[in-house]
Amino acid sequence: MTPPHNPEERPVGALLAPDILAMLEESPGLIAAETEELHPADLADVAEAMPFEQIPRFLAALPTDRAAAVLEYIDEEVRATLLEAMSPEQAAALVSAMTPDERADVLEELDEEHAEDIVDEMPAEARRVTEQLRRYEPDTAGGLMTTDFVSESASTSVEEALRKVRIIARSSRREAMHAIYTTDAEGRLVGVLSLRELLAAPEGTPLAEVAWSEVQSVSPFADREEVTRVISNYDLVVVPVVSESRHVIGVITVDDVIDAIQEEQTEDVQKLGGMQALDEPYMQIGFRQMLKKRAGWLSILLVSEMFTASAMQYFDGELKQVAALILFVPLVMSAGGNSGSQATSLIMRAMALREISLRDWWRVALRELPTGLALGTILGVIGVIRISIWQKTGLFDYNPHWQLIALTVGISLVGIVTFGSLAGSMLPFLLRRLGFDPASASAPFVATLVDVTGLVIYFSVAMLVLGGTLL
Amino acid sequence: MTPPHNPEERPVGALLAPDILAMLEESPGLIAAETEELHPADLADVAEAMPFEQIPRFLAALPTDRAAAVLEYIDEEVRATLLEAMSPEQAAALVSAMTPDERADVLEELDEEHAEDIVDEMPAEARRVTEQLRRYEPDTAGGLMTTDFVSESASTSVEEALRKVRIIARSSRREAMHAIYTTDAEGRLVGVLSLRELLAAPEGTPLAEVAWSEVQSVSPFADREEVTRVISNYDLVVVPVVSESRHVIGVITVDDVIDAIQEEQTEDVQKLGGMQALDEPYMQIGFRQMLKKRAGWLSILLVSEMFTASAMQYFDGELKQVAALILFVPLVMSAGGNSGSQATSLIMRAMALREISLRDWWRVALRELPTGLALGTILGVIGVIRISIWQKTGLFDYNPHWQLIALTVGISLVGIVTFGSLAGSMLPFLLRRLGFDPASASAPFVATLVDVTGLVIYFSVAMLVLGGTLL
Repeated sequence: MTPPHNPEERPVGALLAPDILAMLEESPGLIAAETEELHPADLADVAEAMPFEQIPRFLAALPTDRAAAVLEYIDEEVRATLLEAMSPEQAAALVSAMTPDERADVLEELDEEHAEDIVDEMPAEARRVTEQLRRYEPDTAGGLMTTDFVSESASTSVEEALRKVRIIARSSRREAMHAIYTTDAEGRLVGVLSLRELLAAPEGTPLAEVAWSEVQSVSPFADREEVTRVISNYDLVVVPVVSESRHVIGVITVDDVIDAIQEEQTEDVQKLGGMQALDEPYMQIGFRQMLKKRAGWLSILLVSEMFTASAMQYFDGELKQVAALILFVPLVMSAGGNSGSQATSLIMRAMALREISLRDWWRVALRELPTGLALGTILGVIGVIRISIWQKTGLFDYNPHWQLIALTVGISLVGIVTFGSLAGSMLPFLLRRLGFDPASASAPFVATLVDVTGLVIYFSVAMLVLGGTLL
Repeated sequence: MTPPHNPEERPVGALLAPDILAMLEESPGLIAAETEELHPADLADVAEAMPFEQIPRFLAALPTDRAAAVLEYIDEEVRATLLEAMSPEQAAALVSAMTPDERADVLEELDEEHAEDIVDEMPAEARRVTEQLRRYEPDTAGGLMTTDFVSESASTSVEEALRKVRIIARSSRREAMHAIYTTDAEGRLVGVLSLRELLAAPEGTPLAEVAWSEVQSVSPFADREEVTRVISNYDLVVVPVVSESRHVIGVITVDDVIDAIQEEQTEDVQKLGGMQALDEPYMQIGFRQMLKKRAGWLSILLVSEMFTASAMQYFDGELKQVAALILFVPLVMSAGGNSGSQATSLIMRAMALREISLRDWWRVALRELPTGLALGTILGVIGVIRISIWQKTGLFDYNPHWQLIALTVGISLVGIVTFGSLAGSMLPFLLRRLGFDPASASAPFVATLVDVTGLVIYFSVAMLVLGGTLL
């Protein structure tokens, strides 16, 4: 049994589950009518709150279209287990009643073998569309699109188009029809108008006169970030996916884009935290999977961080002569890591939003250099004050030459924070230039990079400042 | 002059700007017709690519409705400067032609005084609506909503409703009408149907029979995360904002929610990177503002990190006796910070998606404990191998008792990574419990917390392992 995700925030499903379970025992025939007004998302919560073995009975008590809609909202893992437990015929009936894009997504979650068995049992038309959609990568426009959309010849009259739209609206397809696409004699996309605009248009005029001829569209191979950008820049509810020959092959609706944005963001945050993207909810991912996604980066970072040991070995002599230097190693190192982490997350996010592109690197560098210097100076002053207070109040005796040590820490902080800000801001550019995801420039990655350099800066400043007196 | 944001990805505007500038000189009267088919977002790019002083002339060459639509897509700062440079009458004419939600947002960006002057010049109805919307905080449902929506008495017939909808669609209001709300005799919300469902409904039936009686809605005081959750859970294009008396006072459309999601995510990433949210694009924020947002956290972190110096002072005696110990201080500390940063970003994101709630803290702890132990063991083994290789190949001589030093590092890594994972995962819970934003549990914050503890763990393990031989 999978517990409901979040009873305090989506209570409807969890609250109703006991009633519906009772009804399933006593009068299953009433369930369809009793739940008729509920949103499928709420019914999915009801299902998730039930003992697992009751879910198929509950779905069977609903009309197929309804059951398919509920299945679209059920948790991915529960859904996969459910479908794999059914006969291919049963599963095919449910899956065929889903919208084509959901259908392809659902099959993607199953074992290849199970998915094939289900596709084989589908009606011919559903099978054809499903096989077409499954050829696209899930993260591309082709993988996000559905094939249910309305297009009309540009020469059709407004009244005729409206009549057709009403016929389609009355058919069983559930995908929304927010936009109507107009096509030329060869079926190529030439215009678009919203359902609202169709209703507002004067009767009798051909669609060509009322449709917009500038149509925003995406290629089926566009990645989901590109789709998001088009939808969000132009405030669209739906965007057409257009082949090279300018034929509409599908549409992507805004709800799928919202899901894609959320997934993208989850990936970015997880990468920024210094791991591979989990691709599954935290509470559901298996122990081995979780370990695999986290251990890789941690190990790489550990091995890179080993250069700090080498750097410390290199400055072994200095360390032995001025033991007080060692006390501030963690302090100066972490300041570099923190400023680098700030700069990286700023730039990574600005890149994701396309506020800055690759060729802006020098403009960013020109902003980060003075910023880093200013931040470093602030921290340097705090560092000097801290050492002075400890020394003056007798909390610790750093050395007869404590002023020089304070100066070393202060100057190092300026250098390290400046370097951290610059390195942290340039790393996403470098990664993108090399063809990697700029989000891989995680905070721990930057911190590790800056740590080694920070040590070298610190000891070099020490040798300059203390040279002749302590060293 | 503000350079175009991103010519390689949104080329239309930048490409057209020179042509339109030329037209502005020679035949401004043609501009409206020539740009008629362009999306306002593209025309906004055109405007942003022009010398600033030309923009008002360009906007004046467009019909007021068009100019207002273009203004909605123009960069916030440019827009504020533009409106403040106009006379209040000119500005009021443009702003009144915007949708009410955009109107309130735009005024929000201006000086209070300028905003008031513009509001005073608006037509009475626009002024009333604007003043109502400006009373809500920008981040709440009230601040996101627009007041243009369609509602009908539930007793209206489908044909009558369709006739009214067509009249409204033909009026000049540009807000979409994806949903039609039905109301009872007191005007309270009782149902909803989509424009598509209205078209599909049998003529003559009252709306009450075809509308859905379960309507998802939000309170005007709901925060934007709540609005996002409702829109994304139920795959809505629009959600009604409902007063306590169940009257619809506005609607929030999905395009505004996408903008809100993007802003929310920018804030989360920036906080995770260890700073205050910028609230402005990276390239546009002023130097002082940028410094203010970044210096605060950096200073707090530096001061906290000073406890590492205190910890090192405390173990001064041990450090002097076994100098090799110092070499691995950065290594073990950063391992703790990195594992903590992973755990924090995982939990923070799962919380933002409402995958886990406050009361799940012990389930998370039960996952992180074994995960941390396993990750720590992997890193510990790598650490022991590294020291052994350096010693065996003669790269560095750690000590006659180098095995004990290797053991100290290995055991410490297990302890520190376990502690880091636990602390990193619990911190967002603690912050939320205390009423703070869990996103404040930034990677640098966690790293700093774990650093001090990591040092204590490291030296304690050293005293246990080396006690009697080296210490």
